[in-house]
Amino acid sequence: MTADETSAMDHPEEISTRFAEAWNSADAASLAELFAHDADFVNVVGLWWEDRERIRQAHDYGFRKIFGNSAMTLERTKLRRLGESAAIVHAEWSLTGQTAQGEKQPRPRRGVFTFVMQQGDSGWLAVAAHNTDRVPGSETLIADDDGLSPTSYQNR
Amino acid sequence: MTADETSAMDHPEEISTRFAEAWNSADAASLAELFAHDADFVNVVGLWWEDRERIRQAHDYGFRKIFGNSAMTLERTKLRRLGESAAIVHAEWSLTGQTAQGEKQPRPRRGVFTFVMQQGDSGWLAVAAHNTDRVPGSETLIADDDGLSPTSYQNR
Repeated sequence: MTADETSAMDHPEEISTRFAEAWNSADAASLAELFAHDADFVNVVGLWWEDRERIRQAHDYGFRKIFGNSAMTLERTKLRRLGESAAIVHAEWSLTGQTAQGEKQPRPRRGVFTFVMQQGDSGWLAVAAHNTDRVPGSETLIADDDGLSPTSYQNR
Repeated sequence: MTADETSAMDHPEEISTRFAEAWNSADAASLAELFAHDADFVNVVGLWWEDRERIRQAHDYGFRKIFGNSAMTLERTKLRRLGESAAIVHAEWSLTGQTAQGEKQPRPRRGVFTFVMQQGDSGWLAVAAHNTDRVPGSETLIADDDGLSPTSYQNR
C-alpha cells in the first residue's frame, strides 16, 4: 500500500486486534493505516498527534527505540455503537518487552485505550485514539519538584 | 435534580466548559449529570468507571480529598462531528490548587481530555471520557522497581 491508503475494517471492534497485530509486528505503516487521515491520537504522556502521518512517524520512532521487541496482549475489549456509522471501542492491554534503559528489564505495563471509530465508504477507520497506563493503587497524579507521580489520598 | 436526571446539552462542544464549571464548583452531582447512565470514564491513572453513579462517586471523593480547591482552565477545545448524532471533543486543560500531600503546594498540571458525545431525545450527553496528563519532555512511561515513570529514549 502507499502511504495514503488505509486499511478500513469491516467491523469497528476489529480495531483492537488490528492495532495489537501492527504493534506486535512493529509495523508503523500498517498501524497508521487503521486511522483516518486527520485522526487524533493522545498517547500515555499526553502527546497529541493530529493526523495519520504524525501517528505513523511517532510509532516508527517508538518501534525503533522503545517497543521494537515488545508484545501487546489484549485483556478486554468493549464495544459501544453510536448509531449506524460511529462506535467506541475500549481495549485494555498489557505490554511486556519494552526496551531497557539501564541494566534491568522494564516491568510489564497495563493500560486502556479508547478508540473512536467511524464508518466511511471503504469501511471503518479510527478517528481518535487515547491511551493511558493503569497505575495499581493510585487515584491520581501529583506534580512536584521531581516531576509527575502517581499517588493516592486514601489515608490522608 | 434527582440523581437520575441528566443535564443534556444543546451542542456537543459545551461539554468542556460544563465539565470545567462543575469541576471548579467541586460539584460531583452536576459533573455526573453531563454523562449518560452507562458512560465510560478513564481517568489519568487508568481507573475505568462504567456508569454515571461511579463517575459521581469518584468525583465526589476527588473533590473532598484532592481537588476541592483546585481550578481547571481550558486551554484549547477541538470538535469533530461524527454524522448527525455523535461527536468527539478534545479539551486541553491546566489545573492549579491540587491539595498538598506534604508541606509543598503541588505544581500546576496540564492534560488532555477526549470526550465522546451522543445526541439523545433531550440533547447531547457524554458517553465516554478519557483523561491524560501531559508530561513535558517525555515520550512514554517505563515500569521499574520504583513504579511507573515518564521517560524519553531520545538520547538512547
